[in-house]
Amino acid sequence: MKQGDFFKISYKVTNQVYDGFISTFNDKNPLHVNESYAEDKGFNGKVMHGAILNGFLSNFIGEQLPVKNVIVQTYKIAFLKPVYLNDTLLLKATIADVFESVNCIILKYVFENDSEIVVAKGEISIGLI
Amino acid sequence: MKQGDFFKISYKVTNQVYDGFISTFNDKNPLHVNESYAEDKGFNGKVMHGAILNGFLSNFIGEQLPVKNVIVQTYKIAFLKPVYLNDTLLLKATIADVFESVNCIILKYVFENDSEIVVAKGEISIGLI
Repeated sequence: MKQGDFFKISYKVTNQVYDGFISTFNDKNPLHVNESYAEDKGFNGKVMHGAILNGFLSNFIGEQLPVKNVIVQTYKIAFLKPVYLNDTLLLKATIADVFESVNCIILKYVFENDSEIVVAKGEISIGLI
Repeated sequence: MKQGDFFKISYKVTNQVYDGFISTFNDKNPLHVNESYAEDKGFNGKVMHGAILNGFLSNFIGEQLPVKNVIVQTYKIAFLKPVYLNDTLLLKATIADVFESVNCIILKYVFENDSEIVVAKGEISIGLI
């Protein structure tokens, strides 16, 4: 992997992902589970948990990169727009820096929704082990 | 909630959490699922997915804070030491700043393992909605 390498992959927030996240971590905040509460707060429906996107990033790093000998060192993520159930998110990630001296890669990424709106963005530091 | 407020809560990486995370996000990187691979890389066993800690943070923010009208704006997390299956992590979180003008709270946190070693730390920006 080298500076400038670009990856993209789609992740859908299916019912299976949503239910799996809730049954694993038991976050039933009304914003995430109560449609009318979320609408009262100005959203278009139940807002998906931000940490679901961290799960997608885990899949991307652990499974989709061209090498397997990786470990996440840091995550940064900013949630810019709400994500809803059944949204398909396009993850676009670029290798921003490679620090060979410390076997570390910095990856910058965005998640776009179906309307090509960036719903989240961030940076991940990945160690090569 | 006000500056200096302190919270602590334990989360255990049970088999149910580990299996639930994998079945939801399908990250079967060998570091996470292959004991002997992880040991060859210098770890004491399968290393848990970092994003599991984001799931615990989701539970903490959505369910354990004294108010429910919250939404995560940003997460930062640094993984300092490996987390293993059946580790119990103590999450210690402090309200570092409250920005009333923009209804925003900054929370700083660490996760400690059973040996009181800090395994991860970070910062979360939470909006009040």
